[in-house]
Amino acid sequence: MKVLLTHADFIEFEPTVKELRSADEIEKKLCRYEELVVAFTAIEKGDENKIDQMINEIKTALDRIGVKKILVYPFAHLSNNLAKPGTAKELLQEFIKKLKNEGYEVYKAPFGWTKALHIKVKGHPLAEQLRTV
Amino acid sequence: MKVLLTHADFIEFEPTVKELRSADEIEKKLCRYEELVVAFTAIEKGDENKIDQMINEIKTALDRIGVKKILVYPFAHLSNNLAKPGTAKELLQEFIKKLKNEGYEVYKAPFGWTKALHIKVKGHPLAEQLRTV
Repeated sequence: MKVLLTHADFIEFEPTVKELRSADEIEKKLCRYEELVVAFTAIEKGDENKIDQMINEIKTALDRIGVKKILVYPFAHLSNNLAKPGTAKELLQEFIKKLKNEGYEVYKAPFGWTKALHIKVKGHPLAEQLRTV
Repeated sequence: MKVLLTHADFIEFEPTVKELRSADEIEKKLCRYEELVVAFTAIEKGDENKIDQMINEIKTALDRIGVKKILVYPFAHLSNNLAKPGTAKELLQEFIKKLKNEGYEVYKAPFGWTKALHIKVKGHPLAEQLRTV
């Protein structure tokens, strides 16, 4: 499991093309969030028991950054060893649920869609961090 | 070696904090490029003989996207197996030189700096692609 954390002034995204049969059912519209951490997330083969470990990594990172608002952004382009779409979708849901249980304000970008992406990432040394479990 | 190719409407970046002794000597200023492919690039251990293979990967991808303008953006956050900074800096130079030799219009973001990043990525299915060699 790989998560690229980015501390952003804002992110905007808009779903354009459905990539997978298991893609989320969503409305194609522009979404915008401000002052948050975006968690670009790739679920890999064998991640079934790794969600808790990633939650701990994220907690440590977000404590240091000092942010409680997070957008989970499914992002396959961090790995060449991706889980099957059905498994990835389930584990993303588990990831989001557990982040919410930790008290974070959690949002989600749609899974299984090509998305146009517009992001402004802050320029401090903790603003971009890769976490792998 | 990992390269995340993104086909962008524009990118803006501004170096903020020098991270490495071997960082490029540059002027801290905002840079902007439009209508290009940004190659977020991580040089990993053992990449000494992999540049040519990556050039071939990039040529195939850029032919399909139909773009000849590329910004090489050093980006450590794609890998947990990074080469030493001195080696990474040398191989990035080789990568850039060989891209130029292939006829691309090539630009470079500074190596060894934390950078504020603002990017707008297009929403077509080839707009984000990871290449690993």
